[in-house]
Amino acid sequence: MRATKRIADATQASLYRIFTVAEAPDSTLGRLEQEMSQNLVGFLNNHIVASKNALTDIEQDFINPHIPEQPEFVSDHMRHLLEKLVAQSVHTSSPSFIGHMTSALPSFILPLSKLMVGLNQNLVKVETSKAFTPLERQVLGMMHNLVYQQNDDFYQNWMHSAQHSLGAFCSGGTVANITALWVARNKLLKADGDFRGVAREGLHRAMKHYGYQDLAILVSDRGHYSLKKSADILGIGQENVIAIPTDENNKIDCQKLAEKCQQLAAQNIKVLAIVGVAGTTETGNIDPLDKIAAIAQQNQCHFHVDAAWGGATLLSNKYRSLLKGIEQADSVTIDAHKQMYVPMGAGLVIFKDPASVSAIEHHAEYILRKGSKDLGSHTLEGSRPGMAMLVYASLHIISRPGYEMLINQAIEKAKYFADIINQHEDFELITRPELCLLTYRYAPKSVQAFLARNQDEEANKTVNLLLGKLTKFIQKRQREDGKSFVSRTRIEVAKYGGEKVIVFRVVLANPLTTKAILQDILEQQCQLAQESENFLPELLQQ
Amino acid sequence: MRATKRIADATQASLYRIFTVAEAPDSTLGRLEQEMSQNLVGFLNNHIVASKNALTDIEQDFINPHIPEQPEFVSDHMRHLLEKLVAQSVHTSSPSFIGHMTSALPSFILPLSKLMVGLNQNLVKVETSKAFTPLERQVLGMMHNLVYQQNDDFYQNWMHSAQHSLGAFCSGGTVANITALWVARNKLLKADGDFRGVAREGLHRAMKHYGYQDLAILVSDRGHYSLKKSADILGIGQENVIAIPTDENNKIDCQKLAEKCQQLAAQNIKVLAIVGVAGTTETGNIDPLDKIAAIAQQNQCHFHVDAAWGGATLLSNKYRSLLKGIEQADSVTIDAHKQMYVPMGAGLVIFKDPASVSAIEHHAEYILRKGSKDLGSHTLEGSRPGMAMLVYASLHIISRPGYEMLINQAIEKAKYFADIINQHEDFELITRPELCLLTYRYAPKSVQAFLARNQDEEANKTVNLLLGKLTKFIQKRQREDGKSFVSRTRIEVAKYGGEKVIVFRVVLANPLTTKAILQDILEQQCQLAQESENFLPELLQQ
Repeated sequence: MRATKRIADATQASLYRIFTVAEAPDSTLGRLEQEMSQNLVGFLNNHIVASKNALTDIEQDFINPHIPEQPEFVSDHMRHLLEKLVAQSVHTSSPSFIGHMTSALPSFILPLSKLMVGLNQNLVKVETSKAFTPLERQVLGMMHNLVYQQNDDFYQNWMHSAQHSLGAFCSGGTVANITALWVARNKLLKADGDFRGVAREGLHRAMKHYGYQDLAILVSDRGHYSLKKSADILGIGQENVIAIPTDENNKIDCQKLAEKCQQLAAQNIKVLAIVGVAGTTETGNIDPLDKIAAIAQQNQCHFHVDAAWGGATLLSNKYRSLLKGIEQADSVTIDAHKQMYVPMGAGLVIFKDPASVSAIEHHAEYILRKGSKDLGSHTLEGSRPGMAMLVYASLHIISRPGYEMLINQAIEKAKYFADIINQHEDFELITRPELCLLTYRYAPKSVQAFLARNQDEEANKTVNLLLGKLTKFIQKRQREDGKSFVSRTRIEVAKYGGEKVIVFRVVLANPLTTKAILQDILEQQCQLAQESENFLPELLQQ
Repeated sequence: MRATKRIADATQASLYRIFTVAEAPDSTLGRLEQEMSQNLVGFLNNHIVASKNALTDIEQDFINPHIPEQPEFVSDHMRHLLEKLVAQSVHTSSPSFIGHMTSALPSFILPLSKLMVGLNQNLVKVETSKAFTPLERQVLGMMHNLVYQQNDDFYQNWMHSAQHSLGAFCSGGTVANITALWVARNKLLKADGDFRGVAREGLHRAMKHYGYQDLAILVSDRGHYSLKKSADILGIGQENVIAIPTDENNKIDCQKLAEKCQQLAAQNIKVLAIVGVAGTTETGNIDPLDKIAAIAQQNQCHFHVDAAWGGATLLSNKYRSLLKGIEQADSVTIDAHKQMYVPMGAGLVIFKDPASVSAIEHHAEYILRKGSKDLGSHTLEGSRPGMAMLVYASLHIISRPGYEMLINQAIEKAKYFADIINQHEDFELITRPELCLLTYRYAPKSVQAFLARNQDEEANKTVNLLLGKLTKFIQKRQREDGKSFVSRTRIEVAKYGGEKVIVFRVVLANPLTTKAILQDILEQQCQLAQESENFLPELLQQ
């Protein structure tokens, strides 16, 4: 009995220690932390192992469904994580990994993130966030200003108003898009006479009350998949997201958009929202936002811009005009964890009208009381971390001209890469960069010539299919080699009659990616293309 | 011209430095980081200033809506953050702040969080997360096992299956609840004959197809506000969340629940889901989950348990039985950032049936391809950080018995606090702790006696109103003093005829909260009650 108590006391003491005593600087964790602090890039280079391990092999290390009955020493566990997890994770910040929208982080972000985690504020309410609430409201104001450029009075009136909000922070672009369309739906199907509004009575009764045959969301066929997800969640239905064809530059065809609006009106199908894309995920192109704005206004529907990727371009005075018309949008999605170099988990939706959020207002007894400035009364999420601090710090430390430099360089680097692809006779540029994204493929000179002169559609199709297999082969091998990474996707290509073609996709946002690295990547791909001959029979069978 | 170029080069060099060179250990940021590493509690004690500044005063520091045109030095900005933000944030981990569900963090969490941020993985797809994907799947398996205790074969079959998922990580309990009800809605209104399912065709056509008058979600009147928000988002309507009365212990009245189900069936209103609460936000009580399960089965509807707070109790063999019946739930919400001591941003929803998530499956061209193991095809969110790593590490380092100790101690501390409140003649315990939450108020002995013997309802109402003002006064003053914090809420109290009464609410999850601290808090409240006499006229006018 006494022995049991002693053990219990000992365990209790060590539990207490866990909450009070930091790891010693010379412990495994302490040393690792110092290593990270001193040189994150070096740390990641040292610990992430380029491994050809298949996912199914890695899974073998993560199969135990039992919660441990024995505590592990922190340093033992740390070594385990290094070996099994860190070593087999993805080097998202490597300058030769140019296939992701996630890139390098400024080094001040790491200690600041630690501060954010240590403070462990909860932004749902003032009570658990205090100064973080006005800070988040200020960041929303700055981002609103970036998009809408209202005068100072506007921000003085609305930035800290309890009943208003210039936007909402959220975990990412998907939640931002859902929030925007949620606002649009609730504003369209608002209370009216006896009807108490869709928020209270639901979509079924709202549709009965308003007498629409159906609702629709219109976006180009390059729209992000999260829009279909949003339509599903909001009860509108994925099929009611109507894809409008794009032109040869991956931009929405406004003629067809306007026609579709007319068609739908004739069928008594109400257009809930038109979504403009500012930076398509696959090719980085930007829709003609000003023209879409005019069509949205004509049809009296919500105009949302999904600028999850491209929104940060507004920070560049040189390239800002690529997004002209965005200031007419009712709502805009921007991901700070993309081109604003903040870690994963920082999405934003901005609303032109500070009163928009009243359409999604929620209250409760213990928090979000009416008249409180609790941010949670206007967000989809409840408890949320203080990510706004990292955006705030980045805006101050990097500043607008710093961001402009990063963005301009990225775009110019993409143009350089497009040039060397064009100059190389065995590569074919598929989409030229408008922002810092482009797509291309390996296609030997002779094959390109064949495709150019040949009129037989079927033969061309076969060749494109083969080139697709080759692209897939090269991309996979290059990824497995672990030294560099480009991603791949399938896109419709105008010059091949709109046929879907497999291509390499690159995103050149990492400021550490050099021209030499880009040249090397092409070189490697040429070599892999040579090697592919050994796998030709295998390739052809796939 | 040449000068401009020189400036540009210099700025570019410093931008490059930001991405490559860490802050020196003796810089402001470097020193702060060391301070945090060595002693987080001390760091927070030193830097968070107990300030009586009103929110409107703090807002004055956060009013500039312009993105800076000049970069700031990291150390200058850090000093600014310390003074304006950190100093005026909330000490959520202070052992005398017992009003929040956010409490202290184990010290190993800080360096691990830094590692997580530095790795900057994106869990939406394997391509940007690699080993993090199987790790997250394992954690979902462990949590599934905690709730459902299936055999090892079950986990071997489903844990890493591409078409299945044992749950979803998300930013918090709200998204977890939305996800659960989204699954429930899509399963109920599934494809059937010509109808292609609510996910594709939308709610309007689904209701037409199935011919229901309406849908309903049933939960006790202590259900979390996020359920109404979920109903709004999903197109079901807040008013279709039907509040079932609770008994004197804040538990759902199952008789009334069963009756309501019958009533609704007679009206052709389909019950989409019954939600059991395991740990109400305000009082920490747990519904009779086994009885609810039987009613849900009878009515063939989805049974969801919102165990955002109470779910971690399953880690305690001693108290696990408080949640008996949870293993019959179709889905369960658990917040790891609450009683599992992980930082903000770690919600989970667990599904009994690994195939449930097929109801919300999404695919895209460049990721989430069919057959891939990308987690994003079954989550509401898209891009997400690797928070699963922190849950994984905590489960290994603390282990189940460690968590049991933390949970048992918390409950026993709450019982102790209830005892001293009961023993104190000027306090009235309003709800006794079932988990580590309780509510009480300051009510002088004489007033309690008056309320007990007096039969005049109106007079009692007036007294309760006055006591409410007093409670509000004390709570506010105590918060402003900055040394300790209890929260407050309004709850219906059975012994006062179900009248809503303002009470102090405490959550005793912080392992560093001692009995002495609890005694001090009561003492302070007594003193503030004495002081309140000076403010009596003011108080009575409010």
